[in-house]
Amino acid sequence: MAGRSYGEGVPKRVDHAERRAVIADAVLAVVARGGIEQASVRHVAAEAGVSAGMVQHYFRTKDELMRAAMERVGAAVERRLSLLPADTPPRELLRALFRQLLPLDDERAREGRVALAFLAYAAVDPAAAAELRDDGRRMRAYVAAQVPGGEVTAVALLGLIDGLGMQVLTGDLDAATAIAAFDAQLAVAFGAELQGTGPGK
Amino acid sequence: MAGRSYGEGVPKRVDHAERRAVIADAVLAVVARGGIEQASVRHVAAEAGVSAGMVQHYFRTKDELMRAAMERVGAAVERRLSLLPADTPPRELLRALFRQLLPLDDERAREGRVALAFLAYAAVDPAAAAELRDDGRRMRAYVAAQVPGGEVTAVALLGLIDGLGMQVLTGDLDAATAIAAFDAQLAVAFGAELQGTGPGK
Repeated sequence: MAGRSYGEGVPKRVDHAERRAVIADAVLAVVARGGIEQASVRHVAAEAGVSAGMVQHYFRTKDELMRAAMERVGAAVERRLSLLPADTPPRELLRALFRQLLPLDDERAREGRVALAFLAYAAVDPAAAAELRDDGRRMRAYVAAQVPGGEVTAVALLGLIDGLGMQVLTGDLDAATAIAAFDAQLAVAFGAELQGTGPGK
Repeated sequence: MAGRSYGEGVPKRVDHAERRAVIADAVLAVVARGGIEQASVRHVAAEAGVSAGMVQHYFRTKDELMRAAMERVGAAVERRLSLLPADTPPRELLRALFRQLLPLDDERAREGRVALAFLAYAAVDPAAAAELRDDGRRMRAYVAAQVPGGEVTAVALLGLIDGLGMQVLTGDLDAATAIAAFDAQLAVAFGAELQGTGPGK
């Protein structure tokens, strides 16, 4: 089986998934630092400490590089959200989701810049846009099933998460003000009877 | 005076403002089509039908090219908003502002893609971010002075405009759903007593 060792004399199988991940993380690093213009085979190879040929073996186009970085971001956000207890109420889940998209530490700042670069890319690239569309539809349906107001409320909350997140990322808005505005919005969406759980930080 | 004709024999003065505008519009066109990666002197010169030297005479760096395109977008939005009557109520002004940022026609789609590219750029470029910060602060103060809920409501409405606008631009959300969600939000922000003006399209 792939990855299994057959003893000292047999060369270890290359772990392709691991190599892909290392290269995808290198894309993430260069885009977070310098924007989407940096997502070139040359820059990524230098960042990962591998040859350009190695990068191209796993990712043939700039498009594939960008998607790989975006998947790493999505996986990191999901991993952190999965640490929440299974019975976390929807309102707390949305608060946690919002915090994942704010640059509250270096890791989230890097991920946020990559996500924003990918969105700008998707606005001019139909294939990337199609991928986002599926993710967006799933997320909206999930939230709509859990908030009192259904689809309109889900669209507004997710729109607000994206908009405030983007404003904080570009330095247009400070994180504390964004969090206060989002919590106020959650209080409205979930109705006064739930405000007792508190809009605190 | 600049631009004034002194008769047939005298060479016409170069209209620098006009040339700058033509080049800035060329940046807008190439970025709207292919993203920020296309904002190179070479591509812009080809689009404008001028020499690379001419582009560099007016815009020395990629940074200056991007800012020029973004200023053209801002000016176009302001020009269209200025067509509204002076006594337009705040709620209608916000509805009009939101529509300016949606890709409801080709012009707004192009402008939206450029704005999104500029935001992604600002997330990795401190100077561009500083410019956005001033604009954002002014806009928030203006809206905060006009909505019942003050700053928290202004932050939420402007965040929602950016977030929904971005989702529509990337094809993640359809414009009709975005408009319905924003109008519902306006209804909440301005209170039930104003809902009589209608959340229609």
